[in-house]
Amino acid sequence: MMMKDFKPDHYDWRVDGTTAIINLRRPERKNPMTFESYAELRDTFRKLVYADDIRAVVFGSNGGNFCSGGDVHDIIGPLFDRDMKGLLEFTRMTGDLVKAMKACPQPIIAAVDGVCAGAGAMIALFSDLRIGTPAAKTAFLFTRVGLAGCDMGACAMLPRVIGQGRAAELLFTGRAMSAEEGERWGFFNKLTAPEQLADDALALAKRLAEGPTFAHMMTKTMLNQEWSMSLEQAIESEAQAQAICMQTQDFRRAYEGFVAKQAPKFEGN
Amino acid sequence: MMMKDFKPDHYDWRVDGTTAIINLRRPERKNPMTFESYAELRDTFRKLVYADDIRAVVFGSNGGNFCSGGDVHDIIGPLFDRDMKGLLEFTRMTGDLVKAMKACPQPIIAAVDGVCAGAGAMIALFSDLRIGTPAAKTAFLFTRVGLAGCDMGACAMLPRVIGQGRAAELLFTGRAMSAEEGERWGFFNKLTAPEQLADDALALAKRLAEGPTFAHMMTKTMLNQEWSMSLEQAIESEAQAQAICMQTQDFRRAYEGFVAKQAPKFEGN
Amino acid sequence: MMMKDFKPDHYDWRVDGTTAIINLRRPERKNPMTFESYAELRDTFRKLVYADDIRAVVFGSNGGNFCSGGDVHDIIGPLFDRDMKGLLEFTRMTGDLVKAMKACPQPIIAAVDGVCAGAGAMIALFSDLRIGTPAAKTAFLFTRVGLAGCDMGACAMLPRVIGQGRAAELLFTGRAMSAEEGERWGFFNKLTAPEQLADDALALAKRLAEGPTFAHMMTKTMLNQEWSMSLEQAIESEAQAQAICMQTQDFRRAYEGFVAKQAPKFEGN
Repeated sequence: MMMKDFKPDHYDWRVDGTTAIINLRRPERKNPMTFESYAELRDTFRKLVYADDIRAVVFGSNGGNFCSGGDVHDIIGPLFDRDMKGLLEFTRMTGDLVKAMKACPQPIIAAVDGVCAGAGAMIALFSDLRIGTPAAKTAFLFTRVGLAGCDMGACAMLPRVIGQGRAAELLFTGRAMSAEEGERWGFFNKLTAPEQLADDALALAKRLAEGPTFAHMMTKTMLNQEWSMSLEQAIESEAQAQAICMQTQDFRRAYEGFVAKQAPKFEGN
Repeated sequence: MMMKDFKPDHYDWRVDGTTAIINLRRPERKNPMTFESYAELRDTFRKLVYADDIRAVVFGSNGGNFCSGGDVHDIIGPLFDRDMKGLLEFTRMTGDLVKAMKACPQPIIAAVDGVCAGAGAMIALFSDLRIGTPAAKTAFLFTRVGLAGCDMGACAMLPRVIGQGRAAELLFTGRAMSAEEGERWGFFNKLTAPEQLADDALALAKRLAEGPTFAHMMTKTMLNQEWSMSLEQAIESEAQAQAICMQTQDFRRAYEGFVAKQAPKFEGN
Repeated sequence: MMMKDFKPDHYDWRVDGTTAIINLRRPERKNPMTFESYAELRDTFRKLVYADDIRAVVFGSNGGNFCSGGDVHDIIGPLFDRDMKGLLEFTRMTGDLVKAMKACPQPIIAAVDGVCAGAGAMIALFSDLRIGTPAAKTAFLFTRVGLAGCDMGACAMLPRVIGQGRAAELLFTGRAMSAEEGERWGFFNKLTAPEQLADDALALAKRLAEGPTFAHMMTKTMLNQEWSMSLEQAIESEAQAQAICMQTQDFRRAYEGFVAKQAPKFEGN
């Protein structure tokens, strides 16, 4: 399947080479999520499993902000009309978005400027890599709307990224993590200037897209599923996963490039 | 059940608003633990599950120190008279204390000044948030008394807070972690001046106590039980937990406050 | 069993007191791994379980470098002649090396100078403690040879040491982690001058070797197996493990030393 000419209804999609760039809409409201954009993003990441032409994804900012999370009027208000069945449908939909982000083979790079809040913070957290700007303010602010910090996998993933003590503070208080804290704590892989953000994220994505993408898929898969294994299980799982990768042509291409003193040209198979 | 007028026999208990403040006794010996204080603290945290009037807990310092751990004369000496059944009764009692700290719904804030050693370090580690002073010296010193670093869950929780490599060093050597290291490594959420410590911890506790405490309970529960789940299990668990929270009145109070441009008044239901 | 006079064929082994020092060979090629050294190291760490005279291990650098990983000509080239059965035999052999490092009772201290790449980075990662020099360059560079980052347990252990976000960057890009990053992120327990490296690692090893080594074995065991337990399971496991340690003579020796105001002399039983 090809996704080069994909035209989503509720957010912007652009393809540069083999990298897809996603941008949320409505920058005048800091790019809030809606029921429709949640569902369409979930479906998009599910489709990416079968997209032969997309090898990396950038989830970008728009108008100086990443995402303000679920809109108070468009999402929170209507939730009060739902019964438990309807509420669980909603929380499962949001969970399915981050599950789909982890299940697609492409590495996802979040490019985070300005406001990165609620569901927006979760999208950044469930991206594989994160580049921020000094203005990035990342807030897991569920507690501020009367809810728990356990939303879309936050209590599982945030401690794995920044540690249990820091995660607890952000989730109990809902306060924003500054960009400097985010870099120091391991949330952001680096900080860059706002005017460099889109370019830096795209350059990193292209570097990964030019790599051995079948192997990247395996790296991503194993990073996500080894936390709940014993060390022995994890080591055996990696022995199997790497033996599979040793039968790819990319492994041979790298070796032949090395012998010929030429940079290998990977093809993802 | 109300715990406002609770009078423990072996440590100090004070209630300010809906926050309980615990202080160990015998500051002249840096507040050591005894068989009696272990057991009574375990029972207290178990009671807190049913305490309707307590919404946050501060575990404070006393006389410039947090806790020097199990007393050599009062605890270690008598252990040599015990057989294996008796030893396991003791190690399970200490484990039951930290289990009870994690099982009670109230967020626990450790306010750590000076010596924080052995069982004292474990009480700080199993608190949900930690504020320290520049004089805080946190030592998981079990190795120094001829024992293993695996005491009261240290090998499970310390790596989750400060990482496996740093935890291994502290547990193998028994050396004290400085306050500056503790802040840099994510053990302390912040450092403050000794004369500010009690006030800062109480202010943070009150801020949490005024929040959506039913949701805080859920945040605490999920932070503690998602480490051993797969990501998919964790995300589904959070979908269920958050759907429950969406049926609380606090969720509606936050929304109505937002619409009315007024700060919500949460009631914990 | 005694290993003082052990003479391996494919690497250097030296015993100083009760500490074994391992050095890889061929410094002119930055100490690459070969099929033979993999297998012999695996067998050595398995033997260490029964070595009564070895209480700590230093895995040292040689000629300014730690280890350059699997040799391209000696290892990668021959892999192309193997079928899946043969590939899995290789990946399981490398996995068995790190399993054996975690299963032996002695704490292992990696002393890392210069190049620390591929399987070399994994040996450092699966050591219990790590001392580096400012020149240490640690690269999980599997992606650069067309393979996945999931090699020898990297996707399990690296996130536990430096966090999931930083681990993902190193494993997806294959870039080297600088010594300064390694210290700041918790990979290195400390940095020291190159001329001090061997001495500092040996001093730390001797300090541990003079400690309660039966208890150290238990600390190591529990640090490695509690990640995949629930908190409740971990706390119960530690209650049992520590009760066992309370029946050692080293526990009594520490107590009697304390009472007599003399440093205890531990014997590891």
